Amino acid sequence: MRNPQLNDNGELQHLLTLDGLPRDILVAILDNAAPFTEVAEREVKKLPLLRGKSIFNLFFENSTRTRTTFEIAAKRLSADVVNLNVSTSSTAKGESLLDTVDNLCAMQADMFVVRHAASGAPFLIAQHLHQQGRDDIHVINAGDGRHAHPTQGLLDMYTIRHYKRDFTGLTVAIVGDVLHSRVARSQICALRTLGVPDIRVIAPKTLLPTDIEKLGVRVFYDMHEGLRDVDVVMMLRLQNERMNGALLPTPQEFYKVWGLTAEKLARARPDAIVMHPGPMNRGVEIDSSVADGAQAVILPQVTFGIAVRMAVMSMLAV
Amino acid sequence: MRNPQLNDNGELQHLLTLDGLPRDILVAILDNAAPFTEVAEREVKKLPLLRGKSIFNLFFENSTRTRTTFEIAAKRLSADVVNLNVSTSSTAKGESLLDTVDNLCAMQADMFVVRHAASGAPFLIAQHLHQQGRDDIHVINAGDGRHAHPTQGLLDMYTIRHYKRDFTGLTVAIVGDVLHSRVARSQICALRTLGVPDIRVIAPKTLLPTDIEKLGVRVFYDMHEGLRDVDVVMMLRLQNERMNGALLPTPQEFYKVWGLTAEKLARARPDAIVMHPGPMNRGVEIDSSVADGAQAVILPQVTFGIAVRMAVMSMLAV
Amino acid sequence: MRNPQLNDNGELQHLLTLDGLPRDILVAILDNAAPFTEVAEREVKKLPLLRGKSIFNLFFENSTRTRTTFEIAAKRLSADVVNLNVSTSSTAKGESLLDTVDNLCAMQADMFVVRHAASGAPFLIAQHLHQQGRDDIHVINAGDGRHAHPTQGLLDMYTIRHYKRDFTGLTVAIVGDVLHSRVARSQICALRTLGVPDIRVIAPKTLLPTDIEKLGVRVFYDMHEGLRDVDVVMMLRLQNERMNGALLPTPQEFYKVWGLTAEKLARARPDAIVMHPGPMNRGVEIDSSVADGAQAVILPQVTFGIAVRMAVMSMLAV
Repeated sequence: MRNPQLNDNGELQHLLTLDGLPRDILVAILDNAAPFTEVAEREVKKLPLLRGKSIFNLFFENSTRTRTTFEIAAKRLSADVVNLNVSTSSTAKGESLLDTVDNLCAMQADMFVVRHAASGAPFLIAQHLHQQGRDDIHVINAGDGRHAHPTQGLLDMYTIRHYKRDFTGLTVAIVGDVLHSRVARSQICALRTLGVPDIRVIAPKTLLPTDIEKLGVRVFYDMHEGLRDVDVVMMLRLQNERMNGALLPTPQEFYKVWGLTAEKLARARPDAIVMHPGPMNRGVEIDSSVADGAQAVILPQVTFGIAVRMAVMSMLAV
Repeated sequence: MRNPQLNDNGELQHLLTLDGLPRDILVAILDNAAPFTEVAEREVKKLPLLRGKSIFNLFFENSTRTRTTFEIAAKRLSADVVNLNVSTSSTAKGESLLDTVDNLCAMQADMFVVRHAASGAPFLIAQHLHQQGRDDIHVINAGDGRHAHPTQGLLDMYTIRHYKRDFTGLTVAIVGDVLHSRVARSQICALRTLGVPDIRVIAPKTLLPTDIEKLGVRVFYDMHEGLRDVDVVMMLRLQNERMNGALLPTPQEFYKVWGLTAEKLARARPDAIVMHPGPMNRGVEIDSSVADGAQAVILPQVTFGIAVRMAVMSMLAV
Repeated sequence: MRNPQLNDNGELQHLLTLDGLPRDILVAILDNAAPFTEVAEREVKKLPLLRGKSIFNLFFENSTRTRTTFEIAAKRLSADVVNLNVSTSSTAKGESLLDTVDNLCAMQADMFVVRHAASGAPFLIAQHLHQQGRDDIHVINAGDGRHAHPTQGLLDMYTIRHYKRDFTGLTVAIVGDVLHSRVARSQICALRTLGVPDIRVIAPKTLLPTDIEKLGVRVFYDMHEGLRDVDVVMMLRLQNERMNGALLPTPQEFYKVWGLTAEKLARARPDAIVMHPGPMNRGVEIDSSVADGAQAVILPQVTFGIAVRMAVMSMLAV
């Protein structure tokens, strides 16, 4: 079966998910991102790589933060960026989603950055483009439902590699609401691809998918046990809308058991790094002293995220 | 009386309506648009024609789609584009509309792209600019109430000319809600100017203006009759907010009688083209098999629309 | 104590308030703005001064008008501009305001243009940047609560200097809702710094702060008295939301007593200029005949405002 992310030469055609993305391409993205971190420190933070290209931020789900990272990445590559916040109401039918896409294709789009509440929407668009013979147009998944958030996964891998160099001896723990997290899925896929031998998820049973072990992870229901001797702690964001619901106790109770405090972090290796995809709920999934502490690499994640997005965009569109 | 769209040398000063636009100017726009269709196929889809010009998308009525086409056109001409979504509430008084315009003029605007729910708003702005001695600032009407949508009319003419070459032997049918359509008015004006001998409107009586024949069109109340031997079928969009109202039966009933199906289209010439200004209500005014069929030129309309808008902008501002 | 607006060399680091801004810096901004007024009249209204810089319009309070002036100024300096409309709800806690700022810093921002309903928010951000060692990032206050609106104050000074040349012999009256006006505070600070000997405020008692005389102004409760022989009349905007409230009579009654009419303006010097920060409530704080009259310099204020903002941005970021 054809890998919808690759073209016939095995090159990156779309970035839809890290699940099934070949190891050499994943590593190539990380390698290509490195020089882009330097661009951001220049006087003129701009390269002409995508000059005259039209990139559409097609956000069917509002996310100022994610939209901004892609907008900045595209502008630093000199692309023309158009932001489209499309209310899902006006595209209730799948048909009109594709009509919208067809219209933007007819405006000679070069790339779509797609955020959608429905898992699979970016896949649907990529498939449709192929059927229309528009393999000159590229899709980046900027988060679809509970499915995937591949650029987040990639910037996490970039961050780990930056601080730990080698993946093959690492113990990595992913902590929190795995059930609803597209970030966690992307992280697990990438960690496995890169050869991390010990991937752990730490969460209450109500926030874990039933078949999570099948992804090749070890499950822990206790922070003290799960964090023991880990090299990397990847916290997940607790969605506000899930708190106080049926699946969760109060934020205070959650914090007490599952929040990352200095005391719990002490169970990890002394040189363990702490990551978070943001935005953080301080005092819920993470304590401020940890979020702002010496082991946190949360802000470098954001910096690397711009470079990784520039790398993906330039690999797709150049 | 002075033609508010032309300057003293008879050149295009504003694009407000196709009604009264001299034939040579209309044809010049179409001629100028042709090379811009090629720009869109280049590696670097950008020309420096409007570099350093400030274009304001002044949308008093929300329309992501139309705004996007003008934004893309302006960016491909290297202009600086500022999007202003102005709620009509804050400009309830005509006075404050002109205060808003005066302010943007004082910011050294070069061009306004204006969308407004009130017919005549772009005229009012153009007139005001003239009174203020600001003939260096240009207005493009991007749709005003039920009055006009001239760039849509122009891209329609570009499309017809592209596929049919000559206007003087054509039979063209406009189908649907003519009463509320600013698109239909712009189309009829342009078709007459370009010498189309047989312009037909096909609609239920409740969706036709009472004096429609005065525009020089033939009226049909029956699809099978009206579509017979036509070269061009121009479908109109049925506004969602009009459905199920007093003027209309249900969408299903409308589709049965007035929706363009393959069977009805068979009454037209075999090489007839099918046009639609978008966004389409599939299964209401048009059947999907027709919308996606070999005779449809709906997506080329969008592509030509960018080129036509680039042509208008460059004629006004260069 | 360290002046948070200046760096260790006494150069402008942030623009937060005109209160305490040294006279030589204030004058330098006005001097630097002058050539930028000429840029706006060129064919290509663009300079490469901030090419490759990332400027974030961080608006926690909606203001299309002010945002547009900064966007235009930044684009004419060739900066990359990203607009962020951040609802205050998502940043209810001061903590998350700073997390938002930290994230944008990590994206290698060069400048924040901040509008916030809370007085002091831009100060808080500037202080935080300093604590984080990010003195490479600059903050411009685009209006914070009732506190300050320094670029408005600066453009007002530019306007007065343009028309009156010298500040040291002037009588200036500020008229209207001083109590709620961040504009009035910025104006008074700047007028004092520039040596205006006679600064008057004219307002009903209910719209004056209790300690207003401490700012070095003379208070008048009567328009005819207060406007006598003034050189400059600076009208304030009456916020719609304050009308018909406890502090105010109806708009009609306010207009009768406090609205600037030709008859009241006749009390001022014949060459007095009339200013207004916009948007105007015609027929409330100002009569249309005055707003559009020969003494009004309200639209030049807008033009000078772009130049002043370009000057501030280029002084901060170059």
